Amino acid sequence: MTSTIDLNCDLGESFGPWEMGNDAAMIELATSVNVACGYHAGDADIMRKTVELAKARGVSVGAHPGYRDLHGFGRRPVPGLTSSEIENLVAYQIGALQAIATAAGHKVTHVKAHGALSNVACQDDMTAKAIANAIKAVDRNLIFVVLANSKLVRAGEAANLRMAHEVFADRAYEDDGNLVSRKKPGAVLHDPKAIAERVVRMVQDGAVVSVTGKVIKMQTDTVCIHGDTHGAVEIARGLREALKQAGITVAPFKTAH
Amino acid sequence: MTSTIDLNCDLGESFGPWEMGNDAAMIELATSVNVACGYHAGDADIMRKTVELAKARGVSVGAHPGYRDLHGFGRRPVPGLTSSEIENLVAYQIGALQAIATAAGHKVTHVKAHGALSNVACQDDMTAKAIANAIKAVDRNLIFVVLANSKLVRAGEAANLRMAHEVFADRAYEDDGNLVSRKKPGAVLHDPKAIAERVVRMVQDGAVVSVTGKVIKMQTDTVCIHGDTHGAVEIARGLREALKQAGITVAPFKTAH
Amino acid sequence: MTSTIDLNCDLGESFGPWEMGNDAAMIELATSVNVACGYHAGDADIMRKTVELAKARGVSVGAHPGYRDLHGFGRRPVPGLTSSEIENLVAYQIGALQAIATAAGHKVTHVKAHGALSNVACQDDMTAKAIANAIKAVDRNLIFVVLANSKLVRAGEAANLRMAHEVFADRAYEDDGNLVSRKKPGAVLHDPKAIAERVVRMVQDGAVVSVTGKVIKMQTDTVCIHGDTHGAVEIARGLREALKQAGITVAPFKTAH
Amino acid sequence: MTSTIDLNCDLGESFGPWEMGNDAAMIELATSVNVACGYHAGDADIMRKTVELAKARGVSVGAHPGYRDLHGFGRRPVPGLTSSEIENLVAYQIGALQAIATAAGHKVTHVKAHGALSNVACQDDMTAKAIANAIKAVDRNLIFVVLANSKLVRAGEAANLRMAHEVFADRAYEDDGNLVSRKKPGAVLHDPKAIAERVVRMVQDGAVVSVTGKVIKMQTDTVCIHGDTHGAVEIARGLREALKQAGITVAPFKTAH
Repeated sequence: MTSTIDLNCDLGESFGPWEMGNDAAMIELATSVNVACGYHAGDADIMRKTVELAKARGVSVGAHPGYRDLHGFGRRPVPGLTSSEIENLVAYQIGALQAIATAAGHKVTHVKAHGALSNVACQDDMTAKAIANAIKAVDRNLIFVVLANSKLVRAGEAANLRMAHEVFADRAYEDDGNLVSRKKPGAVLHDPKAIAERVVRMVQDGAVVSVTGKVIKMQTDTVCIHGDTHGAVEIARGLREALKQAGITVAPFKTAH
Repeated sequence: MTSTIDLNCDLGESFGPWEMGNDAAMIELATSVNVACGYHAGDADIMRKTVELAKARGVSVGAHPGYRDLHGFGRRPVPGLTSSEIENLVAYQIGALQAIATAAGHKVTHVKAHGALSNVACQDDMTAKAIANAIKAVDRNLIFVVLANSKLVRAGEAANLRMAHEVFADRAYEDDGNLVSRKKPGAVLHDPKAIAERVVRMVQDGAVVSVTGKVIKMQTDTVCIHGDTHGAVEIARGLREALKQAGITVAPFKTAH
Repeated sequence: MTSTIDLNCDLGESFGPWEMGNDAAMIELATSVNVACGYHAGDADIMRKTVELAKARGVSVGAHPGYRDLHGFGRRPVPGLTSSEIENLVAYQIGALQAIATAAGHKVTHVKAHGALSNVACQDDMTAKAIANAIKAVDRNLIFVVLANSKLVRAGEAANLRMAHEVFADRAYEDDGNLVSRKKPGAVLHDPKAIAERVVRMVQDGAVVSVTGKVIKMQTDTVCIHGDTHGAVEIARGLREALKQAGITVAPFKTAH
Repeated sequence: MTSTIDLNCDLGESFGPWEMGNDAAMIELATSVNVACGYHAGDADIMRKTVELAKARGVSVGAHPGYRDLHGFGRRPVPGLTSSEIENLVAYQIGALQAIATAAGHKVTHVKAHGALSNVACQDDMTAKAIANAIKAVDRNLIFVVLANSKLVRAGEAANLRMAHEVFADRAYEDDGNLVSRKKPGAVLHDPKAIAERVVRMVQDGAVVSVTGKVIKMQTDTVCIHGDTHGAVEIARGLREALKQAGITVAPFKTAH
């Protein structure tokens, strides 16, 4: 049973003059942040600013590599990429953030795939392995943030990477441990109280209750929190408060294997 | 007096499906290569391929950061960037290449600014310092390739960086050690024999003869060779042969301070 | 003496998922809008949406071409472009918007240069002429929005284009009719009442009072209003109200020569 | 039975400093050219140069819109675009070329989708209709170049557009009139003589012989010729010569409905 939990959040998703998200509020609530690396969002200056913000708050920094798709924000799959093309684009983005982090006196500790790259990888062995191989090839000490029960887990195991298993606080789960598709009713939870209770149980029991009521074992190292939807900040605040009252420590995921 | 000299060349300047330069020929002639990092040319795949080519040939690899200007190939100045914006764009590009190099089992050993970024920095203290600071902040062991007698030298000294002083084989020099402007007649040398003799003297004497006949002291650690102009490959071949006959070893610049 | 005045505003400056400006509020206040065309901001979808919004409100639509500089939002000069390169980039952007407007059942009636392209052109004959020539070459019926007293005026005259002379409601003027540099104190006016009175006088008297108190003749066909600064919407509302009370009609600039 | 045939070729596929294709040779062989419009290749300057080249040679110019995918050259599908997003990107690109052509004193007469946009549209009604609707909405006199027997034909009919039916000189056909997949052996023809004879028959008989020997009726208004593959220029030259000897006039497709 885990008595600590990490709260991770996507940050640094602005681009040039365009702002996105509520980084100032979210950095107060997260214990680790996933920083866009310039392919789907972010740029060198925003990365620097985001890393400095994280450093000032004692928050862990991870690379959040996405497809090369600025206009689509990395939300559209890019079909036809080879394994080595995926590996290269992930390596490139990790390295860019590592250098920015080093320059800012901070450190990249994890990698989490963004948007469509993540969605595809959760279903597709080739993509999942390419991401894992890129991480391993660049720095085998980086923690691979993997959606619990997805193809990412096996890819991370095969590459012998340190992993942090991620759950979504506000998403319903099928009996097989997969997320309920956003196209189905009830896929997304909106009640802050229900969300908080759910996460507390996940941490305490290492399990989640599916839409049919089935208890599914689920390793829970980190919970993904969002800043870009209405009420998101409130949900995250409620979650932190509930975890505190349950005696669960909120802290960056451990780097132990 | 130096008895070894490095020959450096810009490589990996293709982009996506568009090819540029004659990398296969130039890699045979250079002892170190400057790899475009995706801002003005190159992409993660081309960087990977270029690093692998360099590794296979035992050639040193350096980052060749440029302004964020793909359409203009980094040949146009980008006015108005702050010192930290320049530092960030240089750091980003170095890091991206470092990760790609690490993944390929090779290593980035030097940094040389590209195109307009280099031209501006040779004249502008702020830009020169920002580049030097970026290198220092990312990895103080990286060698800073500096145009002999330019503002880059002082910036490198101030940052206490290892430096390789660069000369151009095919360019005429003014009495003050600056390159003759390309707008003036005689700025560019075309005779392969004259170019080769000139470089041999630079290495042997640590000096170059200016357009007026004045002998100017000039530290010469690396000679820039080009692959993109007509006859360039022939000039580089002639230079290598002349150096060999003069008993000068052609080798990557040393990493000693 | 003019008894009608146009209020123009930059619109459609979002990009992909990133929003910018307060288009919904500004479209209520402007009588003509300048639509970003994809080089410094905007994309085909945002252009379409913006044109549809303008059509629904009976507002005139103009192209707002800028330098090819998405990351810098077209605010940085791009040195070294030739006259024909500027002409081409302006023509490209006008045409793109014309097609989008035609598809939406609306029409492009004017062109106003954006950001650094405009700033450079106000001072530089070559750039000003290239913009005017592009407009003439694409559609000589398009109205050229020119900053009063700038180089744009002469370029528009030389190309025999219809012009709309533009003034800034919230900027101070030098004795020679140029805008006071933003670097100087007092360059930007902030008091909504003072701004409104100033514009009413510009329209009624065809003149503006400079920072030293000198009355300068100034043709005033359109006033630039902003949506992106704090209080901007309030200023624009105050201006419209003041114009109404002064009996000045607010309407798109006439297309007469 | 047609006694004239058009030969169309993709042109203007360079980008910034990167050159692609052999435009100078191909313009001598084609009677109409499809010009990249900046989304997957080309830029305003290359478009201008290409249009001027076409004008000087008396060759028709068409827009060649592709997905917004410069790095992948528009060869990768972009899943998830809505019908109106496709319509907008096609309209944008057509308009950009129209303005450039007008500025150059030439005219856009047709539209042919590029790469993955074309491949997807040949199979997908929504995409095909969106392209046809964009053409119709921008300028209903533009000729829609449609792959014979593809979904593009029906979309063009539904939009009541003028169409030019296109065949590939060097591709084998299935019994149902579809191209043999490039993954199958024999999909691409390489013998210049066989290719030329095949096209002559297509024009004379209005039919093509499939891989199984079946004669398939096929309207043939234009033949796609390529300049980017080895031997392509020779194939196109042989084709022109064979058409000439067969008494078939090579000329831009007629604009009649």
